[in-house]
Amino acid sequence: MKVIITGGAGFLGQQLASALLKNNGLLFDQLVLVDVECPISPIPDPRVYCLMLDLAQEGAVKKLIDIDCDVLFHLAAIVSNHAEQNFDLGMEINFDVTRSLLEAIRNKKPSMQFIFTSSLAVFGGELPEIVTDNWAVNPQSSYGTQKAMCELIINDYSRKGYVDGRVLRLPTISVRPGKPNKAASSFASGIIREPLHGESCSCPVSCNLSLWISSPETVIRNLIHVAQIPAENLGLSRIVNLPGISVTVKDMLDALKEVAGQEVVDLIRFESDENINQIVASWPRNIDISRSLELGFSADHSFSDSIRTFIANELQ
Amino acid sequence: MKVIITGGAGFLGQQLASALLKNNGLLFDQLVLVDVECPISPIPDPRVYCLMLDLAQEGAVKKLIDIDCDVLFHLAAIVSNHAEQNFDLGMEINFDVTRSLLEAIRNKKPSMQFIFTSSLAVFGGELPEIVTDNWAVNPQSSYGTQKAMCELIINDYSRKGYVDGRVLRLPTISVRPGKPNKAASSFASGIIREPLHGESCSCPVSCNLSLWISSPETVIRNLIHVAQIPAENLGLSRIVNLPGISVTVKDMLDALKEVAGQEVVDLIRFESDENINQIVASWPRNIDISRSLELGFSADHSFSDSIRTFIANELQ
Repeated sequence: MKVIITGGAGFLGQQLASALLKNNGLLFDQLVLVDVECPISPIPDPRVYCLMLDLAQEGAVKKLIDIDCDVLFHLAAIVSNHAEQNFDLGMEINFDVTRSLLEAIRNKKPSMQFIFTSSLAVFGGELPEIVTDNWAVNPQSSYGTQKAMCELIINDYSRKGYVDGRVLRLPTISVRPGKPNKAASSFASGIIREPLHGESCSCPVSCNLSLWISSPETVIRNLIHVAQIPAENLGLSRIVNLPGISVTVKDMLDALKEVAGQEVVDLIRFESDENINQIVASWPRNIDISRSLELGFSADHSFSDSIRTFIANELQ
Repeated sequence: MKVIITGGAGFLGQQLASALLKNNGLLFDQLVLVDVECPISPIPDPRVYCLMLDLAQEGAVKKLIDIDCDVLFHLAAIVSNHAEQNFDLGMEINFDVTRSLLEAIRNKKPSMQFIFTSSLAVFGGELPEIVTDNWAVNPQSSYGTQKAMCELIINDYSRKGYVDGRVLRLPTISVRPGKPNKAASSFASGIIREPLHGESCSCPVSCNLSLWISSPETVIRNLIHVAQIPAENLGLSRIVNLPGISVTVKDMLDALKEVAGQEVVDLIRFESDENINQIVASWPRNIDISRSLELGFSADHSFSDSIRTFIANELQ
């Protein structure tokens, strides 16, 4: 069995590769990491093959997809704020490349699992206190629009038997290790990560803003879990709202104080960025997760625990 | 002012052109009817320009869109059953051509109104008794998927200021004049129209099946109305569920009997087509129209009245 991860040099791709190589659930002979910059295997392992490939280039998708592949994790994307600034690039990478991958799978191996990471950004406008599975998407960003279009096309390709698609709507991930990125939600990790590294950090949103978040460990566990569910369990929609926890920015800072003390929290400056605040405020604060729990997906216990896990994994 | 109608040779395009030429609301100097087969003006009028053009051909969209145009009614589409049978053609005409039109407008005249006819077929799966504005789309056909993707991209282009898009989700239209077509809903007019012409007709669905329908006259009135609404009245979503009335097939036959007598109803044979029944049964039976009524859209009075209007317009 062969598994491919697009966006394999990225944060999620690396964490997923690492978990797969530790044999957390999926058995495979070959793991292909593909990205526009050359990925490096997170753990030296003879099963890993690293491929530098721009999927938007003519012929690249056909080169990547072959009949040996059984599971494709399509994580490559232009993140939210970047897609808002560069509309055409977002359309190309987030939508057109996804469609090309689906079309190549349809032609070469329709039984292939295509696991796609969607986003809270598909929601927007009027939102209830708790978003249910039947609540309409109404994206207020180009990133959210592109993800929502991919959800639709993946559902239809799956219904037609052209692919075995599975879509996970990821909560905002916190605490992400590494550097800030151009995602509108980048601050949600930065305000924890940078102070824990002893660095000052700017928070662009209001303390009262509520977020729907998940630790990276839980997201990775859920990405591997979705590859192990029989397709028929998903019913008439391949889209799953993943479990998260609902916290305000203040809750996050209280948890940081609890785990690391006030002097760490004091490294955060509040510098409002109305653009970021508006995008993030348009996302759901809380989501009904009864279906995802029934399907066997995992939830975090608390944000304090997520901070402790981050410290254990990244700082020690 | 110049108005373009794509699908201008089709039933809706011809009815819309006819209404516009009778000066029902919009003032214009030129009306362009465009279609793959050469359209004919429904009324001889020097303002009409007929253009035979396949919008899927290289360069065709750029040829059509120019800075003189103020309102484009994009009605051209591959209908539901046809798009289900020919997936690639549906994607090309229903989605790719729409996207090309939007892109041409963005480049040439972003203030242009782009009026798009969407469909009940965006809904599917679990449905409540009355579908509300916030109920999630979950198309169970490729046609519905393609329409839902267009809705998303039109909303995003409008939000970005690349076009002034307006999307109407049309009820099933009954009674349509003319010939049967490849739409899954074609029977909903056929079971009234053919018997009124003294012809026998086959009904492929169950008598208990409920439909959400509108007369063509009301749909045309609403298509012209949407071009007269200030964009800001539409708020954060350019998508409007148009008013309709909820009837069972039995209600429709009772209305036919009331207007034309039992001997006309006796011309209908019931010959079940599970494929058609399943597609139509996946569409909403009833939709909350409070928003569309607030926006000034019109509703039919009763289906008997729709039959009487059909007889007055088409048979006398």
